[in-house]
Amino acid sequence: MTAALVLNGPNLNLLGRREPGVYGLMTLADVEQLCADTGAELGLEVECRQSNFEGELVEWLHEAGERQAAGELVGVVLNAGAYTHTSIALRDAVSGADVRVVEVHISNVHAREEFRQHSHLSPVAAGVIVGLGVSVYPLALRALTLLGPPTVLR
Amino acid sequence: MTAALVLNGPNLNLLGRREPGVYGLMTLADVEQLCADTGAELGLEVECRQSNFEGELVEWLHEAGERQAAGELVGVVLNAGAYTHTSIALRDAVSGADVRVVEVHISNVHAREEFRQHSHLSPVAAGVIVGLGVSVYPLALRALTLLGPPTVLR
Amino acid sequence: MTAALVLNGPNLNLLGRREPGVYGLMTLADVEQLCADTGAELGLEVECRQSNFEGELVEWLHEAGERQAAGELVGVVLNAGAYTHTSIALRDAVSGADVRVVEVHISNVHAREEFRQHSHLSPVAAGVIVGLGVSVYPLALRALTLLGPPTVLR
Amino acid sequence: MTAALVLNGPNLNLLGRREPGVYGLMTLADVEQLCADTGAELGLEVECRQSNFEGELVEWLHEAGERQAAGELVGVVLNAGAYTHTSIALRDAVSGADVRVVEVHISNVHAREEFRQHSHLSPVAAGVIVGLGVSVYPLALRALTLLGPPTVLR
Amino acid sequence: MTAALVLNGPNLNLLGRREPGVYGLMTLADVEQLCADTGAELGLEVECRQSNFEGELVEWLHEAGERQAAGELVGVVLNAGAYTHTSIALRDAVSGADVRVVEVHISNVHAREEFRQHSHLSPVAAGVIVGLGVSVYPLALRALTLLGPPTVLR
Amino acid sequence: MTAALVLNGPNLNLLGRREPGVYGLMTLADVEQLCADTGAELGLEVECRQSNFEGELVEWLHEAGERQAAGELVGVVLNAGAYTHTSIALRDAVSGADVRVVEVHISNVHAREEFRQHSHLSPVAAGVIVGLGVSVYPLALRALTLLGPPTVLR
Amino acid sequence: MTAALVLNGPNLNLLGRREPGVYGLMTLADVEQLCADTGAELGLEVECRQSNFEGELVEWLHEAGERQAAGELVGVVLNAGAYTHTSIALRDAVSGADVRVVEVHISNVHAREEFRQHSHLSPVAAGVIVGLGVSVYPLALRALTLLGPPTVLR
Amino acid sequence: MTAALVLNGPNLNLLGRREPGVYGLMTLADVEQLCADTGAELGLEVECRQSNFEGELVEWLHEAGERQAAGELVGVVLNAGAYTHTSIALRDAVSGADVRVVEVHISNVHAREEFRQHSHLSPVAAGVIVGLGVSVYPLALRALTLLGPPTVLR
Amino acid sequence: MTAALVLNGPNLNLLGRREPGVYGLMTLADVEQLCADTGAELGLEVECRQSNFEGELVEWLHEAGERQAAGELVGVVLNAGAYTHTSIALRDAVSGADVRVVEVHISNVHAREEFRQHSHLSPVAAGVIVGLGVSVYPLALRALTLLGPPTVLR
Amino acid sequence: MTAALVLNGPNLNLLGRREPGVYGLMTLADVEQLCADTGAELGLEVECRQSNFEGELVEWLHEAGERQAAGELVGVVLNAGAYTHTSIALRDAVSGADVRVVEVHISNVHAREEFRQHSHLSPVAAGVIVGLGVSVYPLALRALTLLGPPTVLR
Amino acid sequence: MTAALVLNGPNLNLLGRREPGVYGLMTLADVEQLCADTGAELGLEVECRQSNFEGELVEWLHEAGERQAAGELVGVVLNAGAYTHTSIALRDAVSGADVRVVEVHISNVHAREEFRQHSHLSPVAAGVIVGLGVSVYPLALRALTLLGPPTVLR
Amino acid sequence: MTAALVLNGPNLNLLGRREPGVYGLMTLADVEQLCADTGAELGLEVECRQSNFEGELVEWLHEAGERQAAGELVGVVLNAGAYTHTSIALRDAVSGADVRVVEVHISNVHAREEFRQHSHLSPVAAGVIVGLGVSVYPLALRALTLLGPPTVLR
Repeated sequence: MTAALVLNGPNLNLLGRREPGVYGLMTLADVEQLCADTGAELGLEVECRQSNFEGELVEWLHEAGERQAAGELVGVVLNAGAYTHTSIALRDAVSGADVRVVEVHISNVHAREEFRQHSHLSPVAAGVIVGLGVSVYPLALRALTLLGPPTVLR
Repeated sequence: MTAALVLNGPNLNLLGRREPGVYGLMTLADVEQLCADTGAELGLEVECRQSNFEGELVEWLHEAGERQAAGELVGVVLNAGAYTHTSIALRDAVSGADVRVVEVHISNVHAREEFRQHSHLSPVAAGVIVGLGVSVYPLALRALTLLGPPTVLR
Repeated sequence: MTAALVLNGPNLNLLGRREPGVYGLMTLADVEQLCADTGAELGLEVECRQSNFEGELVEWLHEAGERQAAGELVGVVLNAGAYTHTSIALRDAVSGADVRVVEVHISNVHAREEFRQHSHLSPVAAGVIVGLGVSVYPLALRALTLLGPPTVLR
Repeated sequence: MTAALVLNGPNLNLLGRREPGVYGLMTLADVEQLCADTGAELGLEVECRQSNFEGELVEWLHEAGERQAAGELVGVVLNAGAYTHTSIALRDAVSGADVRVVEVHISNVHAREEFRQHSHLSPVAAGVIVGLGVSVYPLALRALTLLGPPTVLR
Repeated sequence: MTAALVLNGPNLNLLGRREPGVYGLMTLADVEQLCADTGAELGLEVECRQSNFEGELVEWLHEAGERQAAGELVGVVLNAGAYTHTSIALRDAVSGADVRVVEVHISNVHAREEFRQHSHLSPVAAGVIVGLGVSVYPLALRALTLLGPPTVLR
Repeated sequence: MTAALVLNGPNLNLLGRREPGVYGLMTLADVEQLCADTGAELGLEVECRQSNFEGELVEWLHEAGERQAAGELVGVVLNAGAYTHTSIALRDAVSGADVRVVEVHISNVHAREEFRQHSHLSPVAAGVIVGLGVSVYPLALRALTLLGPPTVLR
Repeated sequence: MTAALVLNGPNLNLLGRREPGVYGLMTLADVEQLCADTGAELGLEVECRQSNFEGELVEWLHEAGERQAAGELVGVVLNAGAYTHTSIALRDAVSGADVRVVEVHISNVHAREEFRQHSHLSPVAAGVIVGLGVSVYPLALRALTLLGPPTVLR
Repeated sequence: MTAALVLNGPNLNLLGRREPGVYGLMTLADVEQLCADTGAELGLEVECRQSNFEGELVEWLHEAGERQAAGELVGVVLNAGAYTHTSIALRDAVSGADVRVVEVHISNVHAREEFRQHSHLSPVAAGVIVGLGVSVYPLALRALTLLGPPTVLR
Repeated sequence: MTAALVLNGPNLNLLGRREPGVYGLMTLADVEQLCADTGAELGLEVECRQSNFEGELVEWLHEAGERQAAGELVGVVLNAGAYTHTSIALRDAVSGADVRVVEVHISNVHAREEFRQHSHLSPVAAGVIVGLGVSVYPLALRALTLLGPPTVLR
Repeated sequence: MTAALVLNGPNLNLLGRREPGVYGLMTLADVEQLCADTGAELGLEVECRQSNFEGELVEWLHEAGERQAAGELVGVVLNAGAYTHTSIALRDAVSGADVRVVEVHISNVHAREEFRQHSHLSPVAAGVIVGLGVSVYPLALRALTLLGPPTVLR
Repeated sequence: MTAALVLNGPNLNLLGRREPGVYGLMTLADVEQLCADTGAELGLEVECRQSNFEGELVEWLHEAGERQAAGELVGVVLNAGAYTHTSIALRDAVSGADVRVVEVHISNVHAREEFRQHSHLSPVAAGVIVGLGVSVYPLALRALTLLGPPTVLR
Repeated sequence: MTAALVLNGPNLNLLGRREPGVYGLMTLADVEQLCADTGAELGLEVECRQSNFEGELVEWLHEAGERQAAGELVGVVLNAGAYTHTSIALRDAVSGADVRVVEVHISNVHAREEFRQHSHLSPVAAGVIVGLGVSVYPLALRALTLLGPPTVLR
């Protein structure tokens, strides 16, 4: 139970380049380094992946569920990007694989367009952290450790 | 005209493991065996596939349309999982490829969350069978044979 | 536990005469014969009734609940016609009498008017079979037998 | 002006048997006895009827209107069951026959499904008593006596 | 083709007594006499019926469809009262029995409550006449004669 | 009190040419002749006008209000065409000028697009006649005579 | 368990003076006397309070919850006035403090403005009594005694 | 800039007692101790307050704005309880006083009732942390320190 | 900069005659005199116009924009009547011509029908004055002078 | 009848400091001086109060109603701030205390967020003045004098 | 078939002057010259008109329908401005006169206010070109030539 | 800056075969040849791709953004098929990669099902061309050249 998975969804490979007024200047590599650093601080092995394919994210969540059930994973930090608002498949992957997820968003989605106000994932997440810039990643990793072992989740 | 295709969508590879109170204890392999058994009983060669990728399901439906037009396929049993509720692309694949589809759902979606009440696929399906557990697969295969050759569908 | 009830609701006495492009050419008598034939094949005694009165259908469901509780009935195939969309009384009769119902519709209601998209009955039905023509009746009878004895329903 | 009518609508003949977790264990006969006892206490002759037919309830309300106009009836206690939510005909019967009605519900409809939140009858009722179990019947009879003669209602 | 049927729905037996500020002082008998007089003027045999039961109105429409198909009926004048707003069964009876209907309302429903603004019947009626008091009956009978034989309707 | 005004709104000058499947083959001139003939039969002088300008229709209604108040006009037959659905100014003209209006539509607007289902005028009209072809004009003129002198309207 | 609390919310100090056509002529003091009299009849000590501050009502409910848990209180009669429709804080106070509440309204809110049709409190109340004038207070006190000790409530 | 304010809104004084299945077993005093401990770890002086009055919370936010402008406060951790969903006044206090707020909720509001899904505060908050139990308080305090001095916020 | 334009829209030529309970007894001429008197008091030359044509009001606003840009006009008092609720063209004329408008309504539109609650003009107006009778005209003229020269408006 | 009350609601004590781009640079003290000056000009004694508590504003309106009924007050200028959009209690206070209110807003709420478009107060106000900066206060005081003594209001 | 009509609706006479950030700096005269130049390139005689009156645009579309039916016109380029969103009369003119229309908008209406998102005209247009600045005019003229003679349109 | 990318989304590989009444008889290869021919005419190198995978389209847009930023691409012609209506990921790819897109649709989506009326892409597109058959491709390529170099886009 010493690892955590950080999954980033569509367009997050553009970080640092995409609308920096909204998302800041750090690249995805910077964020992944920040996660690694936080993991080191917390005693967690942090693994980061990014995909623009809904199906690939679904399958990574399945894998995470298996690893979590095997006691190898403390949970997932998930920034599903735009799929947050449109993907019931991701929601079903979270609940179906019984994986503990902390949902994060870099920007304050509640201060943006109407269609970003609704998340299919939040109702099946253990928690949601929104709008504090890239700090949401270290905060979410810390949240996973604060929650204790996932077997007590449900 | 002696074959049928059974397509399963996202998260259905979790069957038996995912929320067994909702979906039961049979695995996807069990369901595929059940389909094969039913096919044997009905004189249908049954081919089963599963994908978590919307695009792959779209392309399988295109292929099914071609095989059906060639008189090789009696139709498709489609459990599109969560994509049922979000994918217009799948709907367009069904109507665009002119493939005969019986839509199925293992659980009674009408007794679940609001967002599972609407299907993009039902209006272009030949029929819909919902909520009787994994029996929906053999019932749907039987329905395809009861409908007669697809060329009389439209 | 060797009987099943087939209940047809308002306007279904017009079958064969009413909008044949939508409902086909078989009359209600033909459908009832089809049900009897299927029952014979499945070893079920099938009893068919039709009423245009919501109150009468309510009372038949009460009767079915009693007979099912007494182990005389495997369940009900219910085509409630237009009352499907407007009758909460029928829904309450199904759940109140604790009767196992497979809801059927001959036409694909999902490809028709908006007001036919919602069923008050589906959330309390064991399953729903829609849009395959009169084949929905034999499929539903078969579904009742596939489900096993109703006492395991809840 | 010494009589009151208690009208029960669809499925209320199932009382005691229907979803006892929601409606309790008293049967309709028990409730009618409770009403009679309350009537005895209040000096009211109480007459109880139940029907699953909307049309029959409409006609009983017409009859009540005539008897109330003739000074024979202090009003009606009406539990219209599911018709509460779907019947404009009952609403029109209440206002058209100018009959004083106290609407009752045994369960707290406001804590149940969305479709039970709206009553067509409440706007034309003299009062509404909801959710206190079968106590709503004696409370409603008492309310009718507290209101005084119906001629002062409007 | 020398007869017309005038069907009145729930609560219309209260005419003259019910909210006279809205519906006027003429009784149902007066209205039926007015219809008979108009029929005499137009050379139509006019038959009037009233029911508070949705199912009975459904069956009268079935009967009308048969008589119209037999060339005995020029059509139906239908005041379905409150069922106008709630009954899909009546709509299906009109379209299923292929009967020509002129829908009428005595009061101007468009100047009343929101729930009286929608009619399930209007889309399948040949015409709708609203809000001119009891004159809607003679106007509708005249409309039926102006339309010519019903076989040219569709 | 021997005159009536027939006002036709936008695009009705296209009658006979415009979508004849919907509006029939009679031209506006034919309709105006039909109105004149009906007027002759009823002892009414009928004056017909058509405009594509909302403002002009508003002013004609003002003029009609003055003539009606002066006892010269029995009321207005108004087919406001598309303005029916969009013009509050016309509604205010009807109620502000206190003119008696029978609203008419040649086609059955309730069987057409959603946006044709709502009329701003109906709540302030004396009556509405819809969907019987050009017969709505003679029926509306007859309705005006059946209603008696407009001074008793309010 | 011999006491009950009657809490009145905003503007109810205006009773007798405020819109007497809606609320009647009795003042708040009269109502409180009526409650005391009813308490005497039922063997309940009745304590009445009124506040225009949402926060104060919240705290009184907390206090009631403590007294009820201590066996000193049979429950609360709550007329939250306008806060009924806007205050989730009051709802949370009722459910959070686990206090048994009978919600009352003097006027028939269902016959008034749209915004008075929804109550945040009803889903967490033991019952709701609406629209019978000030009689709702004695009826609600009686309801509390009919329900038996609150410990059996949940 | 070495202090932070933790503001708790209505009903949070019930913590530990209120619906422990939802909110856990820690009392408000426990939570405030947890905040103090976290502050000690982060080098922040943490001040905790609770109120059931919307107006009092508004004024505390005004005070916080002044102290933040004076460089004495790093920001506010705000759990506005039910007022989150109903209070525009609190929203205006946050934006009007230009105070940096991290909004927190102990339970996962997105997995609860519909009316808890919308927050008036989120659009004007610097961030939102939801659903991880009482850990949201230390996470939010940490977030305030991660954000740096509030003068760089806008 | 010594002139102001007062524009009145559809049906306002009926003032004094139209629904006096709503709009009062003063005629349009009276109102124009009141405006002239107020102008004299404020040192403004006031010019009044009325039209029932949306297009004419659009063009008058264009003219006003030119005169305001030329420093000849302090702004426009606009009572657009029913077009307030339906005309985006008028809104575009106000913003396109960059003219300063104070929108007025004689009656309290917020206490009337739902469709009068929304104004297309308010978002582009400098201010809105509603519901104080014809006093809205002098108040609006005074508002224009209080605002100072329009060049500082944006 | 020589006094007027000016009531300001939540957050208006921040005036001059709060979002000056929206609300301008004048402080609440400046506005109160402006009101006093206007009162001097109009011969009105003007009393100004501000509160962030809904309950306190409710009680001030009760007091105003009493003073107005006693002939001491010409009415109230009310800027209820955010409570405008959320408080039915304030609405009921205005109508219940029968106090004449001119509702004002400094900014043009119609050009701002959706949730500021609806006022619970407007339907019970004598008038509404919106969006002309702090000039709305002197204009509203003037409006009160233009309306004449409040006894003629209803 | 060598001519095309370019119709511009309300406020387009302000082009170049109106909100240049949205609509650019070219005047209506410039646009009409651009259309003429494009016509010369394509071998089309281009005629341009502008009106602020809905009725006048309706009549120009009637005229266009006649000229198109006579083989003199290849179709219409229509920028109906604000009437796009509010005018069903224009829609009926397009479909009633059976004229081929390419709808254009200079700005990207989909990136602007909600009320500009819906067009009454698009469903009856042959095509829609939006948001590329004044280039939409030459593109639309080119589209008309690419479509071939209008008689093949339907 | 001499190249353009033409991206086609799901099911467009079926062109020519799919619902030819809606989409015409040209195949995707034909359309790509048409694009190449147009490119030759305009001096643009045109590259065409098609994918049924949302993720692949997202990545192609990222690539396009890079090539456009490098001055190699004038922009993208994008027919996203069904993803137009469901994919926020594609929208974010367009705005995040800062790529200039002209959105096209072969059929007139505004004349089809309700769910095809909304595009997630239009608000971030430079322009939209709809409903003129396959001519939308050459028109969109021409539009890209008319817009000038993309660096002036924002």
